[in-house]
Amino acid sequence: MSVEQRVAAVRSILAENGWHAILITNPANRRYLTGFTADDHAADESSGALVISQRTAELCVSPTNLSWAKSEVDQHVISVVATRGSWVASAAEHMESLGAGKVAVEDATTPAASWFTLQETVGSAVILVRANDAVDALRAQKTPEEIELLAQAASCTDLSFAHAVSRFKPGMTERQAADLVREALQQIGSDGEAFDTIVAAGANAAKPHHRPCGYELQANEPIIIDMGARIDGYNGDLTRTVCLGKPEERLVTIYEAVLAAQAAGLGAIRSGTQASSPDLATRDVFAGLGLESHVMHSAGHGLGLRVHEAPSVSKRATGLLESGNVVTMEPGLYIPDWGGVRIEDVAVVEDDEYRNLTTAPKGIESMSI
Amino acid sequence: MSVEQRVAAVRSILAENGWHAILITNPANRRYLTGFTADDHAADESSGALVISQRTAELCVSPTNLSWAKSEVDQHVISVVATRGSWVASAAEHMESLGAGKVAVEDATTPAASWFTLQETVGSAVILVRANDAVDALRAQKTPEEIELLAQAASCTDLSFAHAVSRFKPGMTERQAADLVREALQQIGSDGEAFDTIVAAGANAAKPHHRPCGYELQANEPIIIDMGARIDGYNGDLTRTVCLGKPEERLVTIYEAVLAAQAAGLGAIRSGTQASSPDLATRDVFAGLGLESHVMHSAGHGLGLRVHEAPSVSKRATGLLESGNVVTMEPGLYIPDWGGVRIEDVAVVEDDEYRNLTTAPKGIESMSI
Repeated sequence: MSVEQRVAAVRSILAENGWHAILITNPANRRYLTGFTADDHAADESSGALVISQRTAELCVSPTNLSWAKSEVDQHVISVVATRGSWVASAAEHMESLGAGKVAVEDATTPAASWFTLQETVGSAVILVRANDAVDALRAQKTPEEIELLAQAASCTDLSFAHAVSRFKPGMTERQAADLVREALQQIGSDGEAFDTIVAAGANAAKPHHRPCGYELQANEPIIIDMGARIDGYNGDLTRTVCLGKPEERLVTIYEAVLAAQAAGLGAIRSGTQASSPDLATRDVFAGLGLESHVMHSAGHGLGLRVHEAPSVSKRATGLLESGNVVTMEPGLYIPDWGGVRIEDVAVVEDDEYRNLTTAPKGIESMSI
Repeated sequence: MSVEQRVAAVRSILAENGWHAILITNPANRRYLTGFTADDHAADESSGALVISQRTAELCVSPTNLSWAKSEVDQHVISVVATRGSWVASAAEHMESLGAGKVAVEDATTPAASWFTLQETVGSAVILVRANDAVDALRAQKTPEEIELLAQAASCTDLSFAHAVSRFKPGMTERQAADLVREALQQIGSDGEAFDTIVAAGANAAKPHHRPCGYELQANEPIIIDMGARIDGYNGDLTRTVCLGKPEERLVTIYEAVLAAQAAGLGAIRSGTQASSPDLATRDVFAGLGLESHVMHSAGHGLGLRVHEAPSVSKRATGLLESGNVVTMEPGLYIPDWGGVRIEDVAVVEDDEYRNLTTAPKGIESMSI
């Protein structure tokens, strides 16, 4: 889908909602609609704001980013302008030039301070309304080209995982192991890490978001590796739990439970089903084994230009899965002071099934490294 | 300064402003006040919200992050609680429990959506007001311990720069050169990159925020390297412009102009001076040489737990520099289709002078590599 088609889709959203224009501040949406690859440094350091109306589409960036943006954006579709001062003043000016009406603002990513300044600047003829996730919902439906990039990211992730893990040794620290992952990703062609690699060994594996530390890898303990490549902005996301040598008996039991839960979750993925079904399917397996108290997070999330994006597939998710959605399935069990197991693949939702983009082995026999 | 002293400083701010409590959403401020090292994934993916009142201090994090946060936070000073659902509901509940009054919210980093939901949830007894940069201003004044960490980050950056640049060769792509920088940072002990390393060669050096691409390094052209280590959350930030072989005459002229401007900017740094003085001093040098039209950005920024933070030292900055501020000085000149030069050091503001934390050589003789 070209940038032109994507902008046209946004204009349909404007028409449906009676919006005059929309202000895009989510960096992933900005990239999706313009091709401008800059990320934001922080919530209060935007790399550019995009205003789309029926007639206009204008990306405001700092003078520092102007040549970068111009080199990436198709200026037949999107005008690229340099802000003087903050993007808020430029966006307000553009909104006012469109005349009176409702302008939707991406409220989940626009800082409150910017919203208030916008409202003060544009005066009462322009009414700001909340855009909610209008554009995020567009991105949830991937085109074949996007799925191809996600497949490349998954493949690069899988290869990097195999390469890095083959070099793990007892006595190596988690931090050194994470460095091996980063090196492998770089060598195998990833554009950086999709997120900070997690290596969590022994009792640290009981913490889903453990940051690699000086703890030394030991034989027979669980080692959770959660990592992702990034290819042209599209993210990989893979978790495997491995063991140096022979896993202790409890680890085998927990591993098999998670593997069964993941199979149930993946098996529940198909177009038209409740988005909460896969998560609930994993929980059913754990409950059947009396292990539900060790669940600490949702079984998955949408994946694309962001590591966490629509569709939500938590137990609270509403709505249905649709063909072209891409989601992870990553149930885990966490036992304080002992450790944990998590297994994660990336799946494309298809008509009556799912397609697994992840090929890294995960059978119990693959656990020992 | 202990977390306890930092929280006490925030309580003084509450008292001065007649605020009942403050909601901290800026991840750097959260880390500064609690020790919890998690960053936010994105503007709409907070890793935790902190509410401080005169009597209470509560950090709400997701269940997934709970054990991580508890392992880093001094729970005698800060209570750590797990949110159910979003942090907004937990923060609102805590605010209501404090009774009626004004609660300041960090409006530059709190999404508008969260502000609105908070306001709806807490009801009319709690009045949300804008906190502006109250806590950022605290962080601008570094303690000796923080300056020591920034010195370590600068030193690691300088060593990594020397190591990486010694391996640059004609025919290598910018991307490969940036990979060498990342490898060096990792080997020399940085906790990742402070920001995405810039390597901009030839005409690409005319773009201040160029992203390394497949362009091949060539002899006699400018190569701008902008990079930083990160040590315990504190950032380095170094820019040098080098040349493989002998620089062409124009490059020597431009380089000497930037070096002179940087010397003037650094020379203007001292406690009690206008924060805009160093930037204006660099512009004076460029104007004297008729080169002012090639300036594209401010001459510097504050540096600490964030790469860009208070104090602002742009030409529009108000206020005075104070002892303990840490700022970069990085004037540059950019000439379309030819290239550019930028030179950046990190300086600590002291009573009657500045202290340069950067030791990487920058004399014209050091330019040829």
